[in-house]
Amino acid sequence: MLPIHMAAAANRLKGVLAPAVTPFKADLSPDAERYARHCKWLLASGCAGLAVFGTNSEANSLSVDERMVLLEALVQSGVPAAKLMPGTGCCALTDSVRLTAHAVALGCAGVLMLPPFYYKGLPDEGLYRNFAEVIERVADARLQLYLYHIPPVAQVAISLGLIERLLKAYPEVLAGVKDSSGDWSNTRAMLEAFARSGFDVFAGSEVFLLDNLRSGGAGCITATGNINPAAIDNVYRNWRSPHAERLQQDIAATRAIMQRYPMMAALKAVIAHWGRDPGWATLRPPLTELAPQQAAALVAELTAAGFSMGGLSDAVAV
Amino acid sequence: MLPIHMAAAANRLKGVLAPAVTPFKADLSPDAERYARHCKWLLASGCAGLAVFGTNSEANSLSVDERMVLLEALVQSGVPAAKLMPGTGCCALTDSVRLTAHAVALGCAGVLMLPPFYYKGLPDEGLYRNFAEVIERVADARLQLYLYHIPPVAQVAISLGLIERLLKAYPEVLAGVKDSSGDWSNTRAMLEAFARSGFDVFAGSEVFLLDNLRSGGAGCITATGNINPAAIDNVYRNWRSPHAERLQQDIAATRAIMQRYPMMAALKAVIAHWGRDPGWATLRPPLTELAPQQAAALVAELTAAGFSMGGLSDAVAV
Repeated sequence: MLPIHMAAAANRLKGVLAPAVTPFKADLSPDAERYARHCKWLLASGCAGLAVFGTNSEANSLSVDERMVLLEALVQSGVPAAKLMPGTGCCALTDSVRLTAHAVALGCAGVLMLPPFYYKGLPDEGLYRNFAEVIERVADARLQLYLYHIPPVAQVAISLGLIERLLKAYPEVLAGVKDSSGDWSNTRAMLEAFARSGFDVFAGSEVFLLDNLRSGGAGCITATGNINPAAIDNVYRNWRSPHAERLQQDIAATRAIMQRYPMMAALKAVIAHWGRDPGWATLRPPLTELAPQQAAALVAELTAAGFSMGGLSDAVAV
Repeated sequence: MLPIHMAAAANRLKGVLAPAVTPFKADLSPDAERYARHCKWLLASGCAGLAVFGTNSEANSLSVDERMVLLEALVQSGVPAAKLMPGTGCCALTDSVRLTAHAVALGCAGVLMLPPFYYKGLPDEGLYRNFAEVIERVADARLQLYLYHIPPVAQVAISLGLIERLLKAYPEVLAGVKDSSGDWSNTRAMLEAFARSGFDVFAGSEVFLLDNLRSGGAGCITATGNINPAAIDNVYRNWRSPHAERLQQDIAATRAIMQRYPMMAALKAVIAHWGRDPGWATLRPPLTELAPQQAAALVAELTAAGFSMGGLSDAVAV
């Protein structure tokens, strides 16, 4: 029989995960119905799973209670918890514990955990204590923890040394990492150090998907998975094919268009347009929606590049 | 009769405020008893008020509920709410609203509000919407809002343009700012732009206290107010005296020693030592306490400089 953590590793999510964007009503409260429809469309369109409550989900603009209510509503709507990897890392230890325990109790596949991100210049010892304390307090053998390395936003990094120390202390729990550094040499270093021991390295953007898969990575967790899941999944499914480079170039080209705009606003503008649902364009402060002329320019650029979101309007329209 | 906001301005806190450090028990839960004793000692030792739940209070390592429970306990212990300016700015709009409404309902003098600090590179429009939405939702004429500018930590700044816009829209609510940029030219620009209209500019460190008072500022809100309140208050009370420069140099020298160590750990080490209460040294992850030899070196440096904390051991010891 496999040791428990190897058995868990065999069932882990792999492939393309989207940090599902969170729709808001006009009063800025989360819209559970639009959310469930979008999540179901993503799972039907190529996403192996959903990294709900990620950076691009505006998760850090939601309270702990809002996240818990929304996650429960999503599962109750029929989205399998086994496809979910919610973000649960907060500034406050007690919040991270509460969200993580809740996600595990619901049966989520794993959690994607930011480091506490208010205080800067922390020693690894402090970050180690944070993650260790969360794991000890949750105290549930089902917990699969993915570390979330996104220094451009969090400004607090997950070092290789920290991963090594956590993996040694909690081999059954430490499942992988999402590397959103945007620095392929860092992703490669993570792969070289840890992939062989069953630690799943996800690229934080599809730009690195093919490279990541060729180096033993598990897939990608990417913002644009919200709008281009089938094409990105196609790279995942065909990474050994002779056409892989061309498929990779296509998804990178779409990504490049999106990156010329503020990402979260752009994702919502695209869903609002192709889903024929203007209400989708709303973001919660401090984020702001695209100006109408920006949204029109984005749609024109994507259309000119041959982009479309097949079946989206049926799935997400109100 | 004065317009309401000028009347409110006349009653505002001025002088030296300490972001009271938050003690934790061995199980990392907040220690309400040690906290109340420390806060009472600060108010008896020169602090005009307490900016509880500031950066140096590890406030961002506390959940919203933990902060509310602790604030209520503090007021119930006999600390006047009129002396309190709790930090209430969170990443999530709904959390900021909840904490702010709670503080106002308790009768706090004001709130010191961080911008939402997870997302970086935000336009002022998004920050404006955040603060405006909090003010509109709290909808209480008693609210006195102080903006908290601390770009080295929050990595999200409060611009002069943002202050101007908020002051114009909410003149009765916008009471002041704490400038923890560490950049005197920025504090001076805030003073020149807004001090004459009754907007209270607090320096974020006593290093700038004399300069700030000479330029029309309201005082300082400073970490080291936790350990050196009487001497800092002495500068505030005597800033027009011929000895002001010497008094200022003395407090700056103490500050300089503290700044050679991680500030929050150093503050707690000093309180643990002079309060003869080792339990005070505990920090909640991700922050870490000083190593024993570091703490000893700090105490030795301060002692050599003639520093002591008069009456502290009686006030804070268990």
